[in-house]
Amino acid sequence: MEIIGLDQIKDTLKKIDIIPAIEKGFVIYSSGKAIVPPIGELHFKNPPGDVHIKYGYIVDDKYYVIKVASGFYDNPKLKLSSSNGLILLFSKETGAILGILLDEGYLTDLRTAAAGAIAAKYLAPSKITKIGIIGAGIQARLQLVYLKKVTDCRDAIVWGRDLQKLRRFQDEVKKEGFSIQITQNIEKVTSSCNLIVTTTPSISPLLWANQIRKGTHITAVGADSPHKQELAANIFEIANIVVADSIEQCIARGEIAHAIKGNIISKNRLVELGNVISGISPSRTSAEQITIADLTGLAIQDIEIAKAVFEN
Amino acid sequence: MEIIGLDQIKDTLKKIDIIPAIEKGFVIYSSGKAIVPPIGELHFKNPPGDVHIKYGYIVDDKYYVIKVASGFYDNPKLKLSSSNGLILLFSKETGAILGILLDEGYLTDLRTAAAGAIAAKYLAPSKITKIGIIGAGIQARLQLVYLKKVTDCRDAIVWGRDLQKLRRFQDEVKKEGFSIQITQNIEKVTSSCNLIVTTTPSISPLLWANQIRKGTHITAVGADSPHKQELAANIFEIANIVVADSIEQCIARGEIAHAIKGNIISKNRLVELGNVISGISPSRTSAEQITIADLTGLAIQDIEIAKAVFEN
Repeated sequence: MEIIGLDQIKDTLKKIDIIPAIEKGFVIYSSGKAIVPPIGELHFKNPPGDVHIKYGYIVDDKYYVIKVASGFYDNPKLKLSSSNGLILLFSKETGAILGILLDEGYLTDLRTAAAGAIAAKYLAPSKITKIGIIGAGIQARLQLVYLKKVTDCRDAIVWGRDLQKLRRFQDEVKKEGFSIQITQNIEKVTSSCNLIVTTTPSISPLLWANQIRKGTHITAVGADSPHKQELAANIFEIANIVVADSIEQCIARGEIAHAIKGNIISKNRLVELGNVISGISPSRTSAEQITIADLTGLAIQDIEIAKAVFEN
Repeated sequence: MEIIGLDQIKDTLKKIDIIPAIEKGFVIYSSGKAIVPPIGELHFKNPPGDVHIKYGYIVDDKYYVIKVASGFYDNPKLKLSSSNGLILLFSKETGAILGILLDEGYLTDLRTAAAGAIAAKYLAPSKITKIGIIGAGIQARLQLVYLKKVTDCRDAIVWGRDLQKLRRFQDEVKKEGFSIQITQNIEKVTSSCNLIVTTTPSISPLLWANQIRKGTHITAVGADSPHKQELAANIFEIANIVVADSIEQCIARGEIAHAIKGNIISKNRLVELGNVISGISPSRTSAEQITIADLTGLAIQDIEIAKAVFEN
């Protein structure tokens, strides 16, 4: 049994490109070859927090995986990251524990960013004019870092409420080679960008249908719980393609869940990211289409990233 | 963060009596002061196995706990224990991991045995004539070891199908100070014992109503999944008191689930072990009553035993 700390995980990640592994995971998931039960959840008050337990296995694989990822939103007041957690790899032949990845939530952050890049690769317009990022936290920065792997666009704008946080974000992202504007006016994002990534833990809509121009792709990664929402449900009325990381999971939580509850879209309009990747479902066919990818985070991503780190 | 191996766990357990901790856990659970979501489960074929993920927290506590316990039933062919697993303790103030108890399923075995002793303490007749054990595995032996803490009776009989296994069991249990008979005829157990503990992974009934004498208490610990069953549902017709470790959980899995599905008993006849311990619900009031405790295994037991080990 190996216990792998965060520094060692970061070292290992320098040697591997996780995007192909995560892409493969989505395809396996959508082909029905993974067993991924509903997410386990705990919620806390005083201080506020939540934990997601995502677990499962690939039928032909030798592992089963359990991922624990928490968010404790008052942690920054204590100068701690709000994210924490770990990933456990077990033998699915004997039940023995093989590896404990003490990633403190880092692998969850990365596999989410990788999924955003994959969504953009298959759904964003071929010519990305400017990248719009909603939110200025860890995930906002990582989305830009991973988008570098799938687009040459280095022109970006970030929206947030806290000017100080935006300025810090701007400094960090410049180091990644981006020309980055900051704004507190969300229409500055929607009027100039044809790739928008939403990364906040908002519980009420930030983007509305009347703001979204033709030819825009939106990837929504912030809403991973039933009560969270970044996109007004009416955006789904004008979308040409709506992609879920998991149709089953997105019906229960995330942006799509709100649109389904509001009878804005029906389940049969949804396609799954794994099927878009494998070509079973259509990806963008014109520069005019509006496309949405709703990423609620799948255990298959945790399985794939954990395997990639463990085996390297 | 502390990683505690099995040897260290066993050393620590020599210093503590887990029964009061587990008793307290049942009372907290039944008083509604614990958050314990439904069990997470994975099932495997080739080789056959299953994993239970039990998790939760006590509202006033500083921890949240995730327990992983697996059964891989072909492991003995590889000279490995079929049980495995671990328990994780996290801070419910920051989400930080505090302890990893690499118990390999041992703490699950012990907290189950402790619950059996607690059920006997509150429900068995005051004078136990002989203890009957159904099954001759690890849990069968541990039930006897823990019953020593709540009764002076050292006269026992064990039923099993495999004579060699029964003889090995007999040798082990003699060392614990028991006078122990072995039998392959289950009526030898029911005709001589007024405390019977069933500990097998059977998927069809082993005990029937016509075999059970007045004044018998039965603790059923084997059936922890919806498909497992050790007691014929008609036993519930003749029972005076039916105790569940968790009413909610026993309606979904275990002996009571079969009796409810078969309309043998209704939910309002069930009482919870925590309420029996605290005196809210009645325990045995006469030597003639037939009582049943159905123990499906609660996360609260895992929380309490993990805390007891971690804090010592």
